[in-house]
Amino acid sequence: MALIVQKYGGSSVGTIDRIRNVARRLIETHEQGNRVVAVISAMSGVTDKLIGMAHQVMDNPPERELDMLMATGEQQSIALLVMAITDMGHKAVSFTGAQAGICTYGSHTRGRIESIDPEKVVAALNDGCIVVCAGFQGVTREGAIHTLGRGGSDLSAIAMAAAVRADLCQIFTDVDGVYTCDPRVVKDACKIPVLSYEEMLEMASSGSKVMQARSVEFAKKFGVVFEVRNSMNNNPGTIVQEENRAMESLAVRGVSIERNQARVTVSGITAPVAYTSLILSALAEAEINIDMIVANTAHDGMARQSFTMNMNDLGAAQAALKPVLPQLGPKAAMETEAGLAKLSVVGVGMRSNSGVAARVFRALAEAGIATGMIATSEIRISTTVEAADIEQAARVVHAAFNLDQITA
Amino acid sequence: MALIVQKYGGSSVGTIDRIRNVARRLIETHEQGNRVVAVISAMSGVTDKLIGMAHQVMDNPPERELDMLMATGEQQSIALLVMAITDMGHKAVSFTGAQAGICTYGSHTRGRIESIDPEKVVAALNDGCIVVCAGFQGVTREGAIHTLGRGGSDLSAIAMAAAVRADLCQIFTDVDGVYTCDPRVVKDACKIPVLSYEEMLEMASSGSKVMQARSVEFAKKFGVVFEVRNSMNNNPGTIVQEENRAMESLAVRGVSIERNQARVTVSGITAPVAYTSLILSALAEAEINIDMIVANTAHDGMARQSFTMNMNDLGAAQAALKPVLPQLGPKAAMETEAGLAKLSVVGVGMRSNSGVAARVFRALAEAGIATGMIATSEIRISTTVEAADIEQAARVVHAAFNLDQITA
Repeated sequence: MALIVQKYGGSSVGTIDRIRNVARRLIETHEQGNRVVAVISAMSGVTDKLIGMAHQVMDNPPERELDMLMATGEQQSIALLVMAITDMGHKAVSFTGAQAGICTYGSHTRGRIESIDPEKVVAALNDGCIVVCAGFQGVTREGAIHTLGRGGSDLSAIAMAAAVRADLCQIFTDVDGVYTCDPRVVKDACKIPVLSYEEMLEMASSGSKVMQARSVEFAKKFGVVFEVRNSMNNNPGTIVQEENRAMESLAVRGVSIERNQARVTVSGITAPVAYTSLILSALAEAEINIDMIVANTAHDGMARQSFTMNMNDLGAAQAALKPVLPQLGPKAAMETEAGLAKLSVVGVGMRSNSGVAARVFRALAEAGIATGMIATSEIRISTTVEAADIEQAARVVHAAFNLDQITA
Repeated sequence: MALIVQKYGGSSVGTIDRIRNVARRLIETHEQGNRVVAVISAMSGVTDKLIGMAHQVMDNPPERELDMLMATGEQQSIALLVMAITDMGHKAVSFTGAQAGICTYGSHTRGRIESIDPEKVVAALNDGCIVVCAGFQGVTREGAIHTLGRGGSDLSAIAMAAAVRADLCQIFTDVDGVYTCDPRVVKDACKIPVLSYEEMLEMASSGSKVMQARSVEFAKKFGVVFEVRNSMNNNPGTIVQEENRAMESLAVRGVSIERNQARVTVSGITAPVAYTSLILSALAEAEINIDMIVANTAHDGMARQSFTMNMNDLGAAQAALKPVLPQLGPKAAMETEAGLAKLSVVGVGMRSNSGVAARVFRALAEAGIATGMIATSEIRISTTVEAADIEQAARVVHAAFNLDQITA
């Protein structure tokens, strides 16, 4: 008898009919002889509606009260789901984040999970119940309600799986799993059956929007094996687990793309030291997340630095950097480029398979696609291309590594 | 500096604008130098909508989950109200029933308050906050969420006032206070400035729908002085407190009416003992609340008993009593009368003023109104009349006691 945590997002419980569908799935899993804990988001649209009401009252509502308000969304969906399970003749019980023992710390609206005391959850499981917990929320030691920010329900599910020592945590979503590339871009993209945590992290942070990085990091830290799968069908999904020898046989696991990128380049830097710190501090103060960083020295002996960021942040970045330029050197100047995209190639096999970078850039060159900035990690190679080229770039790289023939 | 608890019902917080209105009132009270605790219902319509969703899922939703679902209504309104107060530049904080320390026992959907530990409420008051608590809800020692059933928010407010030793508990509603009679029926009905708990209880249980009896009983038990007043204006309301000498000067404090009454009479009872118990047990098992009970022995030596009840329960009462008749005697029979109403005259002064009953029935007789069953308590006289006569009955009795000239 296995213990399985299943997480369903807002669209999976978005209507009463869909809630019934989730109830059936939970019962099915239970009837297969498993003990089952569900972690549930608010019905889709509810959280936005609540935030809308708050903004009707005031422009910047206090975050403590926003949490108080938003937490009602999951509290409603867990009650309705338990009703649906009960209606189908099975025992079930709902728990808010606080009741499920999810203890949080940090800031309101972006709380962090400190620990989970699953005493009540385990008691209810021992009592034969399907247990339905509110995702996205927890409670501080002082009893204040926290929400966990974007992707919070995934995090709740992974953390609950760790706390109850679940055999598997299934993250149900609206896609069949993690693909070798976005199937809307590369038609013959394949679902990846197994990924390592590191690969999933690189996929997550380089544009595959399936899960937030912090949930994957949490799973990695506590060794929670999880599966990303579709709540609308019974297809097996993508299992994410510790890296193993077999995974290294494939040099590249997948290709991810990120659109709406922009580049800022600061040139003419003659300030001898600390110029990177000056630039990055100015951007951080403006709360701009930068992605790739490339620094080098030009033929004239002056340094130049380039960054990529989301296109929406470009204006703010220019405004933040302008006052810093005089401190960087008398000829310091800034140039910008919008209309970029980022292509990333990910795989733990890169470590042991040589020539991956060469294959990537040969494929792009043969297709006549110009590359811009390049950044690498141990298991990832990223490059910017013109936005107009990103789809073709993804297709030729996908083909170059035969990712349409993936089987294991 | 006084400590004041203010309770606002669902219609007082039914829209964002009304929530702002409540925020202004709380701030006003705070700025007058008082410490303020608000106890708030869900926005009007929200609880019904939630129950509607539950019934979309299943016919008889488990009550534990109904409580889980319904409790979100107040959790939303308290957060929105705190936002409105904050927006007006004042410090405020919201607490769910559980956070406010409202500990309950009993059944789901009709929990009872066991105790209140106001530690967090008091700390927030000491911190200069206007404290906003969710009414209608609490939490068991085991951490399960309870709602308190009809009138639960009034009860929350009275109990909170007792726990924090408030100087006054103001129950804001959509009427100016308790009237000598329903002003829709008796045009010159007056607001009663001061009432005793006992009078309020008799008014409540004899048809004045302002507050539920259990809240008044709770206030009486813990000596909580409360005021019923209107959330839409600044008129002083009706203060309800311990009986005092001054109250006895008026023989009658008010007249209340209750429509939709029906009578069941069982006659021909020859069973020597326990027939009352047989009849009442049968009605109790069918969950029928009976109101007046009159028992006597007819000229033929056979006993007869009559009861009044809400007209909606008449069919069920007949069904419940039919199988019992054979046990009551060979000639036992049942007759029923629908289309009745009940008139009640209430006042602690009845104890020391003689002739109140005579004045009531003389006024009715002079108006040609026939009376049916009569029941009395120490401070109340009730009689049934034909439904068609109830408004005129109220007017003539109201006039007979000069209740339009009430001043203190």
